[in-house]
Amino acid sequence: MSRRRSESVLARRIRDAGRTDEGRRPDFVIVEEPLEIWLDGHVVGTTMRTPGHDFELAVGLCFTNGLLEGATVETCRYCGTGSAVETEFNVVSVDTGGQAPKPTPRLSTMSSSCGLCGSTQIEELTERLHPIHAYVPWSNEVLFAVTQSVQGQQELFAETGGVHAAAAFDRVGEVLVLREDIGRHNAVDKVVGNLLLNDQLPATDMGLFVSGRASFEMVQKAWSAGFEALISVSAPSALAVDVATVAGMTLVGFVRGQDFNCYVAPGEK
Amino acid sequence: MSRRRSESVLARRIRDAGRTDEGRRPDFVIVEEPLEIWLDGHVVGTTMRTPGHDFELAVGLCFTNGLLEGATVETCRYCGTGSAVETEFNVVSVDTGGQAPKPTPRLSTMSSSCGLCGSTQIEELTERLHPIHAYVPWSNEVLFAVTQSVQGQQELFAETGGVHAAAAFDRVGEVLVLREDIGRHNAVDKVVGNLLLNDQLPATDMGLFVSGRASFEMVQKAWSAGFEALISVSAPSALAVDVATVAGMTLVGFVRGQDFNCYVAPGEK
Repeated sequence: MSRRRSESVLARRIRDAGRTDEGRRPDFVIVEEPLEIWLDGHVVGTTMRTPGHDFELAVGLCFTNGLLEGATVETCRYCGTGSAVETEFNVVSVDTGGQAPKPTPRLSTMSSSCGLCGSTQIEELTERLHPIHAYVPWSNEVLFAVTQSVQGQQELFAETGGVHAAAAFDRVGEVLVLREDIGRHNAVDKVVGNLLLNDQLPATDMGLFVSGRASFEMVQKAWSAGFEALISVSAPSALAVDVATVAGMTLVGFVRGQDFNCYVAPGEK
Repeated sequence: MSRRRSESVLARRIRDAGRTDEGRRPDFVIVEEPLEIWLDGHVVGTTMRTPGHDFELAVGLCFTNGLLEGATVETCRYCGTGSAVETEFNVVSVDTGGQAPKPTPRLSTMSSSCGLCGSTQIEELTERLHPIHAYVPWSNEVLFAVTQSVQGQQELFAETGGVHAAAAFDRVGEVLVLREDIGRHNAVDKVVGNLLLNDQLPATDMGLFVSGRASFEMVQKAWSAGFEALISVSAPSALAVDVATVAGMTLVGFVRGQDFNCYVAPGEK
């Protein structure tokens, strides 16, 4: 079963500060559809995603949100109703045979965990997660190689210009899994879900590349999966720097062309 | 009361593909802190945001998520506990004197409304919102002027390189309100909240500029506030194009330098 991940629409192309009107031409835009996720018969929530690798997304989202709590995923299946492909494949059920705790309802329309300040959130994470402390520095060459490699493989981005990427890579700079999605959280969850379904978690000796900013939640997801480094093409937040420091995770930002900024480097002398 | 919105950290600057190590230098990163929002004594949720314009964010978020349902905001206040600025100013209570319905708990860690496919979500919106149908085209000159003006005013972006912007503008290209935040949803909610608190909703004869992609939720938020155009520096999704078409809202993407693509133009002959 393969779903369309981009589709063609007509767009009027205005160029040269409005002096040139090239008229309406076909333009590929990214597909965005809701995915409803269930865990052991309980609704977890709905995320707007680009179809494809839906099981990875469902499993990864449950994992990075701390819903599995060590439970093993036994099955993963589509369970939508209706005959149309749009409705049939927009509901995924993850089953652990009841090992996972019942997901707690959150009074939230937002994607973050609760807390009253950054320190509260760091405390909550240190209670749940172990520090990584992989005091092996990442070489500059590996980080540049990974960035170049990922950017060369962003097929949907090349087609639509409107999609995020996340990728897991190893110590010699090989890209192990790369996923693209309209949502930057989804792209990361797909990568984590892929590793989990292939028994590759915790992500020891691996780094995570993200095409967006390194916000608090990106570091949180990377830490929960055990990645030893987070590499972002954009800026980190102050809280992200704090969390990466506590986690013992390498944090690199603004990887662009020939340059980057290293914010946290546990292995650095 | 003014909160820090950026702070300085030390970052090791690697340049020239690793051949130049400029050492650790001060670098400004954006502040990211949780804001817990209450409506008439009920928790709505927590969002990770850049401090500043918190009342606008709280009110705007309640509005764009359809929680107010026509109720008037009577008061807005900080109600955190503790003496530290971080905890005292990270909880905001919005009060309508009980006019707004009790917020419904959502079993969701995500930011989207529920539904099984894009069509379901469009139906849900058409039941709740009126079509805009402002059949007055936006001139190319105005759109370019707005883009240039907004980009010249993104102070936090200039400092940190890691923050989104949203802005409301009028038919002659004047920027009426501009807000920056680490979250692109927050930036839009702050703009909408500002207009609501100044009795300027619905946003008739106004357009909304966003620094990120035009995803489904951006169009949904713009529509709920009554904006007649959504201008994005990045790509729209397929669903965003569909929703803007149903809403009767102008949708422009990839506004960059001298160029843009117009995806939906209700006023176009």
